Amino acid sequence: MDVRAAVAIQAGKPLEIATVQLEGPKAGEVLVEIKATGICHTDEFTRSGADPEGIFPAILGHEGAGVVVDVGPGVKSLKKGDHVIPLYTPECRECDYCLNPKTNLCQAIRTTQGAGLMPDGTSRFTLDGKPVFHYMGTSTFANFTVLPEIALAKVREDAPFDKICYIGCGVTTGIGAVINTAKAEPGCNAVVFGLGGIGLNVIQGLRLIGANKIVGVDLNDDKKEWGEKFGMTHFLNPKGMEHQEQVDALVEMTGGGADYSFECIGNTKVMRVALECAHKGWGESIIIGVAGAGQEISTRPFQLVTGRSWRGTAFGGARGRTDVPQIVDWYMDGKIEIDPMITHKMPLEDINKGFDLMHEGKSIRAVVEF
Amino acid sequence: MDVRAAVAIQAGKPLEIATVQLEGPKAGEVLVEIKATGICHTDEFTRSGADPEGIFPAILGHEGAGVVVDVGPGVKSLKKGDHVIPLYTPECRECDYCLNPKTNLCQAIRTTQGAGLMPDGTSRFTLDGKPVFHYMGTSTFANFTVLPEIALAKVREDAPFDKICYIGCGVTTGIGAVINTAKAEPGCNAVVFGLGGIGLNVIQGLRLIGANKIVGVDLNDDKKEWGEKFGMTHFLNPKGMEHQEQVDALVEMTGGGADYSFECIGNTKVMRVALECAHKGWGESIIIGVAGAGQEISTRPFQLVTGRSWRGTAFGGARGRTDVPQIVDWYMDGKIEIDPMITHKMPLEDINKGFDLMHEGKSIRAVVEF
Repeated sequence: MDVRAAVAIQAGKPLEIATVQLEGPKAGEVLVEIKATGICHTDEFTRSGADPEGIFPAILGHEGAGVVVDVGPGVKSLKKGDHVIPLYTPECRECDYCLNPKTNLCQAIRTTQGAGLMPDGTSRFTLDGKPVFHYMGTSTFANFTVLPEIALAKVREDAPFDKICYIGCGVTTGIGAVINTAKAEPGCNAVVFGLGGIGLNVIQGLRLIGANKIVGVDLNDDKKEWGEKFGMTHFLNPKGMEHQEQVDALVEMTGGGADYSFECIGNTKVMRVALECAHKGWGESIIIGVAGAGQEISTRPFQLVTGRSWRGTAFGGARGRTDVPQIVDWYMDGKIEIDPMITHKMPLEDINKGFDLMHEGKSIRAVVEF
Repeated sequence: MDVRAAVAIQAGKPLEIATVQLEGPKAGEVLVEIKATGICHTDEFTRSGADPEGIFPAILGHEGAGVVVDVGPGVKSLKKGDHVIPLYTPECRECDYCLNPKTNLCQAIRTTQGAGLMPDGTSRFTLDGKPVFHYMGTSTFANFTVLPEIALAKVREDAPFDKICYIGCGVTTGIGAVINTAKAEPGCNAVVFGLGGIGLNVIQGLRLIGANKIVGVDLNDDKKEWGEKFGMTHFLNPKGMEHQEQVDALVEMTGGGADYSFECIGNTKVMRVALECAHKGWGESIIIGVAGAGQEISTRPFQLVTGRSWRGTAFGGARGRTDVPQIVDWYMDGKIEIDPMITHKMPLEDINKGFDLMHEGKSIRAVVEF
């Protein structure tokens, strides 16, 4: 079938709107009509060429929501008409990782997903007869896409697509980092670095679990108001401050150090500040941001021996098929907010403007509606 | 009173056996007759001058066992005749750290202890009328020493001093890292780097909790037999192997990576191997070894984002007054072994020989008996 897609033809070039051919779902696969998709920094990381594992040409996009149109042989958990959110971290419920309660990193289709292919080793997309690669197993920058059954969370039908698409990445990553990875407790003090699309969701996750102090850190003073909207209690703009000055200021602001700190930028120097501002004895620092290729984090081991721990999280430690429907419920019940974070909406034709807004720091989230 | 002590007069020099004056216990303090003391790498770290916080002249030693001879005003939990193990990590049961179940790093007397003084800011030791500093709050290289009440664990009276002194540091650090810090589960696979006085206790801690694979790593092939005595199931001598070769070999040996890895050397390069051989998704690496001043650990943050965590431990995460008596019981009940690790015994006069044996890698633990 013909589908309309934004295609990343080549690293560093704007996406091109094109009509692409999509094959129907094979065994274990599902055809989904994408109704809305967010534009995330990870898409930009790959589009720009910074991602060393980026493959082209590809259809990017990993933060979508839509409706099941058709299912391939053997698909049992989904049927035509179901509302779904694509999962770049699938949940097969059978692999060693899914069976270990300590991780959400299902490995069932990791190799083919990383290679831009469906689990059978082929692509469903072609352009002018040549294959176009899938991206993160999701490729939501197309009005129709094919996904493995294990990479789709079934969600309630009264939830608006243009909001819950954001649960496919940013919302779950931020809130999940607090709930699943940190398992932060009520009354804790926390520091959040980077008040963008992830950081604000970390902040509202901290508010949700009843954190005490929620300190936001950003170089852009405009983000103070944004942070406060979602529960931030204190703000630090570290512009011009040396490393140790930042650490000392944050230890002071948290009354001895952060019980939990979250790096939502991908800057390895900030990661060190995040670790070292954690409380001696028990502070945990959680890396969410994705650093550039080859970059390294470092610290003195004394920081760890005196009780801090350094951890990371992907997709907020969430098991998508299990946890994503619950987060949709929380949104519909008013426990968490999404609407104010969707700052811009546009048709697919204007998707490159969405990337521009993100670059300029003008959007929290730009969403494409099909 | 006159006491016999091995005094570290100056950094880098051998200890000098001397008669030193010891004042009696002040309020909240206890006079202990030390019956036996182990010689640990940490003593050597300070004696050699490598410890940037080392203070001289001082009476070193932190791995002792003895009997209460006298108590100062206000001491309630101990009386004359009680058998005790000195604690370089005290347990006041009142500070924010003692009241937080996530840490054992009691801060009640941290500042004075670090300055080589009793909690009132003075020393009890003098030599030729000039003050001699305490060390780690314990100074067990003397046949009598004064300690704060909160820095003494009361233990059963039928336990032999020349064995249980080792519980004052090495045994508790190794076993505690497994039980308190890692909270390792039966059936886990683990890697232990450095099969010395700490590493062997990590190994027997892993055996105690029912670990599956226990892989030991040491540059000295003679340590293979030592590891096997205490439960090691596999051995790797990484001599001549590059970083990634070591990581790959250990991931292979553990069937996908270590659920828990323990660095017991203090080498920052080994710390990186320890982290990176941990299992994707859930592996935890725990730093026990003390690195040289100014040295740093580093890795790619991707290692953490994909589920590994980097942590550290001091005194095995043990709360001394609570946990040390239990470890003495485990020894007396035959649940753990100590006797084979005490490879050498000597009188105080020969203490420098004990340091030599440690340097030459000939001893696991040398113990001074008074």
